[in-house]
Amino acid sequence: MSEALLASITCPGDLKRLTTEQLTQLAAEIRDFLVAKVSRTGGHLGPNLGVVETTLALHRVFDSPRDRVLFDTGHQAYVHKIVTGRQDGFDLLRQRGGLSGYPSRAESEHDLIENSHASTALSYADGLSKAFALRGEDRHTVAVVGDGALTGGMCWEALNNIAAAKNRLVIVVNDNGRSYAPTIGGLADHLSTLRLNPGYERVLDLVKNALGSTPVVGKPAYEVLHAVKKGIKDAVSPQPMFEDLGIKYIGPIDGHDIVAMESALRRAKGYNAPVIVHAVTRKGFGYRPAEQDEADRFHGPGSFDAETGKLLAKPSVKWTHVFAEELVKIADERVDVVGITAAMAEPTGIAELAKKYPERAYDVGIAEQHAATSAAGLAMGGLHPVVAVYATFLNRAFDQVLLDVAMHELPVTFVLDRAGITGPDGPSHYGIWDMSVFGVVPGLRIAAPRDAASLREELREAIAIDDGPTIVRFPTGAVAAATPAVRRLGQVDVLRDDDRKDVLLVAVGSFAGLGLEVAERLAGQGYGVTVVDPRWVRPVPIELIGLAGQHRRVVTLEDGVRAGGVGDAVASALRDAAVDVPLRDFGVPVGFHPHGSRSEILTALGLTAQDIARDVIEWVSRMDDASIEVA
Amino acid sequence: MSEALLASITCPGDLKRLTTEQLTQLAAEIRDFLVAKVSRTGGHLGPNLGVVETTLALHRVFDSPRDRVLFDTGHQAYVHKIVTGRQDGFDLLRQRGGLSGYPSRAESEHDLIENSHASTALSYADGLSKAFALRGEDRHTVAVVGDGALTGGMCWEALNNIAAAKNRLVIVVNDNGRSYAPTIGGLADHLSTLRLNPGYERVLDLVKNALGSTPVVGKPAYEVLHAVKKGIKDAVSPQPMFEDLGIKYIGPIDGHDIVAMESALRRAKGYNAPVIVHAVTRKGFGYRPAEQDEADRFHGPGSFDAETGKLLAKPSVKWTHVFAEELVKIADERVDVVGITAAMAEPTGIAELAKKYPERAYDVGIAEQHAATSAAGLAMGGLHPVVAVYATFLNRAFDQVLLDVAMHELPVTFVLDRAGITGPDGPSHYGIWDMSVFGVVPGLRIAAPRDAASLREELREAIAIDDGPTIVRFPTGAVAAATPAVRRLGQVDVLRDDDRKDVLLVAVGSFAGLGLEVAERLAGQGYGVTVVDPRWVRPVPIELIGLAGQHRRVVTLEDGVRAGGVGDAVASALRDAAVDVPLRDFGVPVGFHPHGSRSEILTALGLTAQDIARDVIEWVSRMDDASIEVA
Repeated sequence: MSEALLASITCPGDLKRLTTEQLTQLAAEIRDFLVAKVSRTGGHLGPNLGVVETTLALHRVFDSPRDRVLFDTGHQAYVHKIVTGRQDGFDLLRQRGGLSGYPSRAESEHDLIENSHASTALSYADGLSKAFALRGEDRHTVAVVGDGALTGGMCWEALNNIAAAKNRLVIVVNDNGRSYAPTIGGLADHLSTLRLNPGYERVLDLVKNALGSTPVVGKPAYEVLHAVKKGIKDAVSPQPMFEDLGIKYIGPIDGHDIVAMESALRRAKGYNAPVIVHAVTRKGFGYRPAEQDEADRFHGPGSFDAETGKLLAKPSVKWTHVFAEELVKIADERVDVVGITAAMAEPTGIAELAKKYPERAYDVGIAEQHAATSAAGLAMGGLHPVVAVYATFLNRAFDQVLLDVAMHELPVTFVLDRAGITGPDGPSHYGIWDMSVFGVVPGLRIAAPRDAASLREELREAIAIDDGPTIVRFPTGAVAAATPAVRRLGQVDVLRDDDRKDVLLVAVGSFAGLGLEVAERLAGQGYGVTVVDPRWVRPVPIELIGLAGQHRRVVTLEDGVRAGGVGDAVASALRDAAVDVPLRDFGVPVGFHPHGSRSEILTALGLTAQDIARDVIEWVSRMDDASIEVA
Repeated sequence: MSEALLASITCPGDLKRLTTEQLTQLAAEIRDFLVAKVSRTGGHLGPNLGVVETTLALHRVFDSPRDRVLFDTGHQAYVHKIVTGRQDGFDLLRQRGGLSGYPSRAESEHDLIENSHASTALSYADGLSKAFALRGEDRHTVAVVGDGALTGGMCWEALNNIAAAKNRLVIVVNDNGRSYAPTIGGLADHLSTLRLNPGYERVLDLVKNALGSTPVVGKPAYEVLHAVKKGIKDAVSPQPMFEDLGIKYIGPIDGHDIVAMESALRRAKGYNAPVIVHAVTRKGFGYRPAEQDEADRFHGPGSFDAETGKLLAKPSVKWTHVFAEELVKIADERVDVVGITAAMAEPTGIAELAKKYPERAYDVGIAEQHAATSAAGLAMGGLHPVVAVYATFLNRAFDQVLLDVAMHELPVTFVLDRAGITGPDGPSHYGIWDMSVFGVVPGLRIAAPRDAASLREELREAIAIDDGPTIVRFPTGAVAAATPAVRRLGQVDVLRDDDRKDVLLVAVGSFAGLGLEVAERLAGQGYGVTVVDPRWVRPVPIELIGLAGQHRRVVTLEDGVRAGGVGDAVASALRDAAVDVPLRDFGVPVGFHPHGSRSEILTALGLTAQDIARDVIEWVSRMDDASIEVA
C-alpha cells in the first residue's frame, strides 16, 4: 500500500469521502506516521495510538470547527492534528517554534482548549453547550475524556451539571483501563465490569434495531428489554452509573472498530440530550512495544528506535531517581512514612516505594485535591505522608494545602517534581507558580535543593518536621552537578565567598550553578560576590537579612515566577528588618511561555549567566554613578 | 418538661444511658437551646436543627474521641458541641475569645477538622481510616456529609478511593435536598427518586431481618430479594450509584427518627467495609420559621426574634446588594452577560439575576472548579460569564482560573464577595488570599472598589474587558461610606492631595476610608500626604510609579495577606522602574487568624488608623534621622 492516502488528507472533509477499507488503511498509515515521527522527536505516543479510529470517526460524524471537538488532556490530539492539516508540523513536534504537543488555537481553527490538565474537558463542554443553546446555535459539542480523567472530581461536577442542563452534548469516554498507570478506584472496577461483558454491545444493537432508533426518554426501552432477556440476576448487576445521573449511555463499543464507533457516534449525535459513548480501546494499539508496555514508558517517551521500541534515553541520573531512592531509605527507617501519587507512580518515583512497601503507597487517581486532604487524614492518624506530584498539578489543590493541611499544622511533605521551567509540554506544564502561590500558606516551609546531596538532605529535613507541611521542589531532567558549600551559615549554604562584599547573590535551588557562573562574570569585572543557596526559601531564612546588611547590593535568582516569588519575599523581609540594601530579582516573568527545550526557554527569558551578569553590572554601575552624583 | 436533661449531658457517655423517651425529650431541649442561643448571637441554625437526632445517634453508637466523627462543613457541628461539654460556650458563639462556629481542636478532643469548606470530610476520612488500618488500630471513622456537598468533585474523588481501599468507614449522607439553596444537578434528581419511595426502608428492614445481619460481599443479598419482590420494573430503576462504586448502602432512613438512625448506624458499624447511611432530614426541622424558609435565611441568620423568627438585621445596604442590582442593570443592556453561582445564589446576589433572567443564571452546585471552567466554556461560546463566589472559595479553582480561563484569554469576571477579613466564621472563611494568589495569573486584572459607586463603575469596566479575565473583590457587610475622588489620574483615583509630597498612601479598596484617617493623623504631625485608590491593583497601575517618584515615601494599605500582595507588587514595580522611594506595606500578616467581628480582628492585627499612623511616623522619622546622620 502506498502512503498516498495519508498525504491526501488535509482537512476533516477529506475523511468523509473514504470507504471503510480506505479508513482502515488510513488508520494503519497514521500509526506508522506517529511511530516514525515520535520516535525521532519524543512526545505522547501510547494515548494517540489508542484514539486513531475514534478520532477518524469523530471527524466523519461531526463537522469541525462548526461542531466543537474537545480533547481532555490534549496530548491525545495528535491524530486530530494529522487530519486537520498539520502533518508537516510533526518534524518539529514540541520543539521551539514547531508544532505544540497540545491543541493550539494559534495552529488551527479546529483547536479550542489548550490545557493539558486532566478532567477539565467536560466542564468546558458544559459551558460551550449552554452557550450554543442560549444563543440558539445549531452546533454540537463533543468531549473526549479518558477513563483515568474520570477519577478527577471535576468530571463529576461537570457530569452532574450536564445531566441537569439536558443540552445536546456527546461525551466519548476513551476507556483503556489506565490513565498513566492502570486506573484505580471504584470507578475502574465498575468500568471493568462493563468491559468484561463482550456480548453487551451485540445484544444492545440487536435489541436497538428491533426497537428502531427513536430516542427515548429516561431509561432507554431497549435496556428494559435487555434486562428481561438477561434475567433478574443481570438486571440488578451494576448499571452504568452515568444513567443514575440521567445521562444516556451507549456502549461499550470496540474503540478500534471504526464502523462501530461511527455508528455509535451517529446515534449519539441524533439525541438532543447529553449522551455518553463508552469506547473501549487499548493504549498503544497497533505498535507492539507500546501495547506490551507494562511500565507505560510509551505514554510519553523520548526518542526511541522505531523498529525495536528501544528507548534512546541518555543514561543520566534524574532528580526523580534521587528522590525515589532516598524516600525508600527513609521508609526503611521510619514505618510511619507513606507515599501518595495522583496516577503517576512511575514518573514521580513513588513506584519505588510501592515496590518495596506496597501497603504504604497510595495511588489516588488523577485527584490532587483528594491527594492533599487524604494526606491530611493520614497525618491526623499518626503517619507522615509524602505526596509526590508534578509542580504544575499541586496548583489544583491550593485550597486543600492551605486549609486542610496547613491550618491543621499537619506534617505532610509535598514533593514537587518538574518545578520551574519544564519545556516541551508548554505553558500548562510549567512548574513556575509554586513558590509564589504556596509562599502565602502560613506555616508551610519550602525547600529548593540544588543537587542530589541537598535533595537527599532537605527531603530528610522535611520529613523530620512534625508540626506543619513542607514542600521540596526540584526541576525536570538530569540532576544538577554537585555544588559543594564552602560553609554553612545557620540553615544557609554559602557557595562562594569573596573578600569584597559588593553583591549578595541568592541563588535558589537548581539555579545555584547559574548563580556561580554569574558571580564569575561579575568577579571578572572587579566585583566581590557572595553566592548563597538559602536551601529553605519559605520562610525567608533570617541569615539572609544579616548577610544582606553586609553587602552593597542583593540579587536574587529563582526558577519560578517573579510575582510573589523568593525575590519579593526577600525584599519584604529586608523592608521589615529596615535593611535598606537595594535588591534586584531575577526569575520567570509573569506569562504563559511557549514550548521548547528548557535551555531554549531560559535563554529566551534572559535567564542565562551572560544576560543576568550584564543586567546586574549595568544596574550596579548606574546606581554607583547616581551615588557619586548625589555625593 | 424541665431543662434538667440537657444540663446533665456533659459528654457523649451521658447519652448512652438515656431511654428512647428521654432522647426524644433531649432532642426537643436541644432545639429550644439552639433557637434561644443563635437568636441572640447569630450563627448557623437550619443545618444544626436538621442533624439533632443524627448527632445523638452517632454519639450513642460510636465512641468518640476513640472513634472519629468528622463533620463536613463544620457549621453543622453545634449539636456535637452541645453533647461534648460545650453548652456554656454558646453565649459567646462566634465571638472573639468565645466558642468557634466550627469544630476546634483547641476546644475539645472530640474535634478534629476545623475546615469550613464543603466536600472535604470524605477525603480526611479516607486518610484517617487508612492510617487506622495500617497501624492496626481498632477504631471507627465516621464522616457526616450533606447532599449539597456531594455535588463537589472532591467527594467523588474520595468515594472512588474509599471504594477501592475497602477499609472500615461509615459515611452518613445528611440529605435535606438543599445545600444552601436546593441542591441541583443529576445527583439531586437521583436522590429525590430514592426519597420519594417511602416504603423502601420498611421493605429493606423486613428483608434484612429475614436474612439476618450477616455482612455480604458485593451486592447485599437482601437487595436481590428486594428486586424479586418489586419486579423487574423497579429492579432496573436507578440503583444507588454508590453501589456501582462498590460501597454498601443503607437507606433512605428518616433522619429525625432517632431509633431508626441508631439502628442503621449500628448496622453500618458492624460491616468491616465502607458503608453509606442515607439519612433524609429537613433543614430547620422543629422550628417553624426555619422549616418554612424558602429563601434559606435561617441557614446562617444574624440575631432574630426567637418567638416570631423575625430577623433583627439592620437595614443597611450591603456590598452584595449593590453588586446584584448593578449586574441586573448590565444584563438588561447586554444579552451576552450570564451569571454563575456555586450553590449560593442568595448570599452572592446571583438570585437577583436569576429572578429576572432565569435562563441566564447557572447554579453549578458546590463546585467552584466547574464554575470556573464551565465559565471558560461559556466565554468560548460567545458569552460574558460573571462568576460570583465568596473570596475564600475561589481558592478552590486556582488552577482553573490560571489555565482554563486566563491562558485562553477568556472574558470571565469573577466577583469575590466577603473578600478580606471576614470575622465570625473564622480562619477558613477569611478572604485574604485572593490578591496574592490570583496576582500571579498572567493577564488577570483585579479591581478592588472602595464604595458603592466605584463597585458599580469597576464592575462595568470589568465586564467591558473582552480579552481576559477580571476579578472584582469587595468585603463583607454594609457598603462603605461614599468616598469621592478629588481627581482621577489615568485609572487611579486621587482621594486627597497635599501641597507637600511627603507620603504617597496607596489605599486598596475598602481601606480607602482607613487611608484617609491615617492621612489625617499624619497631616496632624505636619506631613503632607497624597492618598490614592488604585482601583485596579493588578497589574499595578503605571500612574503609581510616577506618583511614587514625586514623594519621599510610599505606604500601601490592603485588606489582604501581605505576602505577594499589593504592597509587594508595588515595591516590585518600583524596583523594576528604578524608582528608589522607600516603601512600607500594611496588610494582613500571614497566618490563620481567629474568629471575631471584623473590627475586632482588624484592631487585633494593628490595622487601625491609630496604629498605622504611629508606625508610619516612627518609620519616616527614623529614616529622616538616618538621612541626617549620613548627610
